[in-house]
Amino acid sequence: MIYDVIIIGGGPAGISAGIYAARQRLKTLLITKNFGGQLNKKAMAVENYPGFSRVSGLELVEKFKSHLKDTEIDIEEGKVSRVEKKENKFVVLTGEEKTFESKTVIVASGADPRPLEVPGEKEFLGKGVSYCAICDGALFKDKAVAVIGGGNSAFESAIFLSNIASKIYILEFGSQIKAFPDNQEAVDRSGKAEIITDAAMTKIEGDDFVKSITYEDKKTGKEKTLAVEGVFVEIGYQPATFFVKDLVDFNDRDEIVVDPVKFQTKTLGLFAAGDVNVGKYKQIITACAEGAIASLSAFEYIKTLQNTS
Amino acid sequence: MIYDVIIIGGGPAGISAGIYAARQRLKTLLITKNFGGQLNKKAMAVENYPGFSRVSGLELVEKFKSHLKDTEIDIEEGKVSRVEKKENKFVVLTGEEKTFESKTVIVASGADPRPLEVPGEKEFLGKGVSYCAICDGALFKDKAVAVIGGGNSAFESAIFLSNIASKIYILEFGSQIKAFPDNQEAVDRSGKAEIITDAAMTKIEGDDFVKSITYEDKKTGKEKTLAVEGVFVEIGYQPATFFVKDLVDFNDRDEIVVDPVKFQTKTLGLFAAGDVNVGKYKQIITACAEGAIASLSAFEYIKTLQNTS
Repeated sequence: MIYDVIIIGGGPAGISAGIYAARQRLKTLLITKNFGGQLNKKAMAVENYPGFSRVSGLELVEKFKSHLKDTEIDIEEGKVSRVEKKENKFVVLTGEEKTFESKTVIVASGADPRPLEVPGEKEFLGKGVSYCAICDGALFKDKAVAVIGGGNSAFESAIFLSNIASKIYILEFGSQIKAFPDNQEAVDRSGKAEIITDAAMTKIEGDDFVKSITYEDKKTGKEKTLAVEGVFVEIGYQPATFFVKDLVDFNDRDEIVVDPVKFQTKTLGLFAAGDVNVGKYKQIITACAEGAIASLSAFEYIKTLQNTS
Repeated sequence: MIYDVIIIGGGPAGISAGIYAARQRLKTLLITKNFGGQLNKKAMAVENYPGFSRVSGLELVEKFKSHLKDTEIDIEEGKVSRVEKKENKFVVLTGEEKTFESKTVIVASGADPRPLEVPGEKEFLGKGVSYCAICDGALFKDKAVAVIGGGNSAFESAIFLSNIASKIYILEFGSQIKAFPDNQEAVDRSGKAEIITDAAMTKIEGDDFVKSITYEDKKTGKEKTLAVEGVFVEIGYQPATFFVKDLVDFNDRDEIVVDPVKFQTKTLGLFAAGDVNVGKYKQIITACAEGAIASLSAFEYIKTLQNTS
């Protein structure tokens, strides 16, 4: 038995791919450890998925899951350990030592924000600590916030927050800012940002909500505390893609390179949708659109296989 | 008073753009005659917008509208007659002879499927007549259907339907099929399609639901009737874009050319999202994603204006 499409991942991109694949009558298997992906970590409400003015991450996961389960696709609880391509088919192996075959594969395994790993970070997740300024920034109107990181994504978060927050501290571990000049200029022009380099975060504190962060000034060895109500951690992502590494190209953030029309990787029949790929905007709505497009592209690819067989 | 962004259109792309623009604290005006765009014409249920297993087009419009109205953007009921660019700003004129100014413009004015204009077409809309095989095809499992049109989109619809329907008639007005060879081959390979050229549709008939179509064979002048339960009209789209024609490039379908990452047109600061642009898949979920991305891109463009001013 060979599937038309195997979808790896149960977040918004994978679920949307599943819904579309099922509607195309593709024989579909979705492999995931759990459903929802990063949505499960979104303790703050989702307000930017059109159709739901305000919905908790967990509620939205339930709605996505229930939509997927109304379709006729197979679901396998597991974790993919390896994907191989053999002639015109893919072989997908799981950590549970099961093997599945398919004509196409959609990688939608997501990416986790890299954590700071300091005390308070986990405790205040959704209570001031966030990994997504575009998602959660609106809650910090006229408040002081900190952005941790000195790259483009940190600076872009600070720019985004400059329309909302009253004050933005940007803390970079190294002695140099890596963001592009235009991003640095835009942050400067906001008049709201204070950039602190050589800052090693040591803890996040508060009561019900974040009240302060503490960092070590690496030049002096002294600890300093800043009063902030929001902490945006922007020190990179960790896409979970090791299982597919021989079949795709990565950019410098370990994101899978795809073309922006079909979301196909360099391996024909292998697609990547959502946070796992190079897409610029890591939004729920864009992940869903990419999952849908990947399934529509997989469908077209399967038709070309039939044409040449 | 100058807006940060003016959004033209109140369908899924425009509404999603509005939701995102508002969350970015952009001073936003949305101009539309009415909300929902093509969704209002979808009498069949929407089953492919992730989060809603099954929702009527009108219900989804209501959810989108209510989400948008929870944000702080200005809404102007009207029809845009012209967009001009003057230095770093846009001037938007409406048919109601009002004038608005903005730093950026997002065109999300949609596209209407071109109608056949034969008796029965309007009466059976949503009762067998459809303009979207991907949206509505699933309802015709093991039934005979007709696709009207001989171009790629007609053939792609037929390919999509070949996994669902029992029999597919493809009726082309001209004497030649315009679809690409690969699409023609795939239709052929399905074994389910019968292609009829020189066919001038004359009427669609039925009772509660479509039962048959009638066409004139232009070679003989005789009328013929086919028993079908579905009629997919795929004779092209009519994007509503005349008001912006001096500022953008069009493809051969009169769709606005945009880059696939930012959805920007050839005019800096002018974006196009949803059915109005060259995007391959005209889905609700892709329109929403494009609207969101256009707003995020508009936000970044405004920041570069500030950098250079």
